Amino acid sequence: MPGLATIIAEIAAEMAEAPHRGMVADYIPALATVDPRKFGIAVVEADGTCHMAGDADEAFSIQSISKVFSLTLALGSIGDKVWERVGREPSGTAFNSIVQLETEAGIPRNPFINAGAIVIADMILGNHAPREAIGEILRFVRSLAGEDGIFVDGAVAAAEQETGFRNIALANYMRAFGNIRHQVELTLGVYFNQCALAMSCRQLALAGRYLMAGGINPATGHSVISPRRARRINALMMTCGHYDGSGEFAFRVGLPGKSGVGGGILAIAPGRASIAVWSPGLNARGNSQLGALALERLVHRTGWSVFEPVVGG
Amino acid sequence: MPGLATIIAEIAAEMAEAPHRGMVADYIPALATVDPRKFGIAVVEADGTCHMAGDADEAFSIQSISKVFSLTLALGSIGDKVWERVGREPSGTAFNSIVQLETEAGIPRNPFINAGAIVIADMILGNHAPREAIGEILRFVRSLAGEDGIFVDGAVAAAEQETGFRNIALANYMRAFGNIRHQVELTLGVYFNQCALAMSCRQLALAGRYLMAGGINPATGHSVISPRRARRINALMMTCGHYDGSGEFAFRVGLPGKSGVGGGILAIAPGRASIAVWSPGLNARGNSQLGALALERLVHRTGWSVFEPVVGG
Amino acid sequence: MPGLATIIAEIAAEMAEAPHRGMVADYIPALATVDPRKFGIAVVEADGTCHMAGDADEAFSIQSISKVFSLTLALGSIGDKVWERVGREPSGTAFNSIVQLETEAGIPRNPFINAGAIVIADMILGNHAPREAIGEILRFVRSLAGEDGIFVDGAVAAAEQETGFRNIALANYMRAFGNIRHQVELTLGVYFNQCALAMSCRQLALAGRYLMAGGINPATGHSVISPRRARRINALMMTCGHYDGSGEFAFRVGLPGKSGVGGGILAIAPGRASIAVWSPGLNARGNSQLGALALERLVHRTGWSVFEPVVGG
Amino acid sequence: MPGLATIIAEIAAEMAEAPHRGMVADYIPALATVDPRKFGIAVVEADGTCHMAGDADEAFSIQSISKVFSLTLALGSIGDKVWERVGREPSGTAFNSIVQLETEAGIPRNPFINAGAIVIADMILGNHAPREAIGEILRFVRSLAGEDGIFVDGAVAAAEQETGFRNIALANYMRAFGNIRHQVELTLGVYFNQCALAMSCRQLALAGRYLMAGGINPATGHSVISPRRARRINALMMTCGHYDGSGEFAFRVGLPGKSGVGGGILAIAPGRASIAVWSPGLNARGNSQLGALALERLVHRTGWSVFEPVVGG
Repeated sequence: MPGLATIIAEIAAEMAEAPHRGMVADYIPALATVDPRKFGIAVVEADGTCHMAGDADEAFSIQSISKVFSLTLALGSIGDKVWERVGREPSGTAFNSIVQLETEAGIPRNPFINAGAIVIADMILGNHAPREAIGEILRFVRSLAGEDGIFVDGAVAAAEQETGFRNIALANYMRAFGNIRHQVELTLGVYFNQCALAMSCRQLALAGRYLMAGGINPATGHSVISPRRARRINALMMTCGHYDGSGEFAFRVGLPGKSGVGGGILAIAPGRASIAVWSPGLNARGNSQLGALALERLVHRTGWSVFEPVVGG
Repeated sequence: MPGLATIIAEIAAEMAEAPHRGMVADYIPALATVDPRKFGIAVVEADGTCHMAGDADEAFSIQSISKVFSLTLALGSIGDKVWERVGREPSGTAFNSIVQLETEAGIPRNPFINAGAIVIADMILGNHAPREAIGEILRFVRSLAGEDGIFVDGAVAAAEQETGFRNIALANYMRAFGNIRHQVELTLGVYFNQCALAMSCRQLALAGRYLMAGGINPATGHSVISPRRARRINALMMTCGHYDGSGEFAFRVGLPGKSGVGGGILAIAPGRASIAVWSPGLNARGNSQLGALALERLVHRTGWSVFEPVVGG
Repeated sequence: MPGLATIIAEIAAEMAEAPHRGMVADYIPALATVDPRKFGIAVVEADGTCHMAGDADEAFSIQSISKVFSLTLALGSIGDKVWERVGREPSGTAFNSIVQLETEAGIPRNPFINAGAIVIADMILGNHAPREAIGEILRFVRSLAGEDGIFVDGAVAAAEQETGFRNIALANYMRAFGNIRHQVELTLGVYFNQCALAMSCRQLALAGRYLMAGGINPATGHSVISPRRARRINALMMTCGHYDGSGEFAFRVGLPGKSGVGGGILAIAPGRASIAVWSPGLNARGNSQLGALALERLVHRTGWSVFEPVVGG
Repeated sequence: MPGLATIIAEIAAEMAEAPHRGMVADYIPALATVDPRKFGIAVVEADGTCHMAGDADEAFSIQSISKVFSLTLALGSIGDKVWERVGREPSGTAFNSIVQLETEAGIPRNPFINAGAIVIADMILGNHAPREAIGEILRFVRSLAGEDGIFVDGAVAAAEQETGFRNIALANYMRAFGNIRHQVELTLGVYFNQCALAMSCRQLALAGRYLMAGGINPATGHSVISPRRARRINALMMTCGHYDGSGEFAFRVGLPGKSGVGGGILAIAPGRASIAVWSPGLNARGNSQLGALALERLVHRTGWSVFEPVVGG
């Protein structure tokens, strides 16, 4: 096969020509005004080599991709008690659906739909002030990526807060079942800020390395999370990482992945690579149209699907 | 790590002691009378070596595991047209749920819930008589396993037909939407017989080899299905293979797998092994209690989870 | 107010001019070929006077209106045990919805949705052959109307049987819960024939007199059903008689009523009149467009709404 | 029949002996501490005569009964535009269900479930401050009853605000669809205060007179609302006034009625009487257990069911 650098450059070139780019999220101005022609990809290999193409160094709003990092933090601090308040099953419904909560006692199906991530934010909030919890998340993501340039986009966070009525509804609904334990405003303060993290593809791919490497940050050799939990987060990304498009992503791409409404996707090829793509146009399920296509082609050309026979395995 | 033979023997020994064995399916006598203490495991490695322990040579009713083989057959005969009549997403509901069909125009969420597998049976029926379609499925499974001793248990098939009111309901419901195209009795004749296939763990693990090997039957070198489709079937097994317990199975085991109400599970470690386990007691979601536990331990001891960093990858 | 004869003639004249007549049911040819310009109305007063206008003497397929008569029969033969197998609440869903059955153990919400009426047919079938049960229903309706010319339209019954996949699905689904106790074919044989009753507006209004008169057939003075049960059937017609358009019908018309997909509506003004209207075009909820409009005008001009202050009461 | 005073006294005596009194609402202390042995009934006849028994002069929290008055106010101020934002169908679900909103674009099924009443409160709020809107509702109810002693229980309103997470969720959810147009806190401020109205049975029965009398307050002769709208409010009370117990209430009682979680029920016998009952114990659907029983007996003994042949009609 051609070298990875070549593959990535080819994919970026192909994506530049792609006629169907999806629709940019327009519920807040900060997202609506992003140029739909943007496309970036960054691949960090197990040995630390980083390949990039397109707008891989431009920061974008990672949105729901942050749910991977917040889940990791929560597992690190309260362990398997996380699973008393959130499930591990695909929801079969949209990212912001409230229906399932009514019949399942306010326990969200998984930590990657909005309701689940809000519960996780409530856990991280713990006994802290929201500002501290947000600081903790930010420090965690910076340390994962080894970059101090990652920041929370205050304009995005403020806009989310102003327009996030469905999320406020979800949080209050779960509060009614006792599954949100802080004032809803505080918990959502954490959640909206976490979603407003701005990162480039390069930073995101760097931050995802521990999931490629059995829970260890290969740059430092330090354990971020146990190998078992790293595997399990990957499993959740596979079954639940793209809302009601998770099955389709697994079918086409075959990697654990987590998408965000800003157009980013973080995908993990265990033992091989941590991959971030970004293209702001979304498909009907709210996942990056070209991001998924680029990953499909990358996996096809590298043989990295986890469902492919292991080369030399 | 200890050799695979040792691992498997240990697991079988552990399962013999397991206190919580689940509940044996009791909706038909042929299943209800199976001894709940049964446990079998067979692992066929990429090189063809087959390890077995427990009741691995005893035939049991494979039930929904047959949906993997029927999907493969249908993809082989009509290709991607399959996806015009059945989806690729986890359903978030029980194996025999009818709810989703009402709002989604009679298109089942995936080919591994009952409704989806009935549509697949309708495709396989094509222009044949049910007897011929059943014969085709039987020949296909025999050729995959390289064993002529596989048979359809007529008593099971007859009992399914007599008690399968929910499946009859599903089929008629989809017929109302035009998504079942033959007389319901004929399509269900195929479906009930396919579910009544009796196979041993050894036979099942042998039959699953093509999914481990990129679509090729390693015993014959012949292509069963394209590599891409083999990957995709694995993906569907991962996201949808255990009904509303699919997320949990991915979380705990991390392999594509398909369970049946007879207590069997077929699991695939791509490039490494095709694995069949059998223990008749079921958990609350209708999946083999000890089967899943045995696979969890096997994967833990071998490092075969697809979410684990590839050894030497 | 003008005399009732005048009011009815006026309404018929107005309906002849109505521009929006709805869509004629087209799922079976026998219904699809009915002339959409048809309109009939018949009003039988408490003193027995019968006023008619339009096509009030032309037989049409009464379809779901038959559910009122079959419920009456079942209450007469097994009494309040009826309510162990069917509920008394509006369903909030379409006439042929299956969703609610899944979460409510196969107990239909009320006897006027299809699922409920199929359970009632199963009760009437009892220990009889379908032919006898159908004969019993036919004799009952003939005796209510005092007319021997009422018949079952065999072509309609046969067509229902051939195309009624959703009803077959409903019946099998409830059979799976044990709430259908005969072979589904037998129960549906009764149901499809009952729905195929052909009656004119005049015959229908005559047949409904017992509900106007506290359970007594005013023509014979014989008790059809107890006063309490007559009231309760009226209540069910009010809350559940028009499927998910029941609220709207109560809001606009304010009488207990039961519609059929053939375009008929039977409405009861307790103590005052039994009313039948017929116009084949249906609204979006499957209820007669002009039938409801005609009743709205009739009630407006007569003051017969049960929600109106009783004149001299 | 015995005189109405006797009937009412008998019913009150029977209720005092009733063994099954239901469960008192306990989600806020102000309701939880009400004595479950309380029972009151007041009947105001068309001629103005008022009969009372039991605790008919003791104020209780009318809760959802207030939805009748707020709907009347909204219809008076913005007319049929009300129906652009709220439906007229029974919901088939519990009073606080959120499920239906998701699939129906944030339009509540009817104005008597919580979601619907919150939309109505949003309409009443209009361009006012919440304090003014609450004042308007209070003045309206006082004028209907002809009593200045009616007040808002501030402790109840405050407690609702503190614990009303589901209602906050509903309001935010509808806000996301644009069907709440003010700040959620303001709209809910109106709603929670309206629900906290404290009234006695006597006051409530007096306030309901306009619905008995075709929209006219018989004490003043002034029109409260048009006769058509009075009829229609009665119709909505019949089909939707008891949440998912509305069918049962129509079946047993046969009067338009509206219940509240404080244990009150307002029922209307058009042209005959406005009736209020109160007993704090609730049945499984959240409606007053003895209140419904008392009304059933009252209707049985007076023949006031709207489904009964009109006496001399």
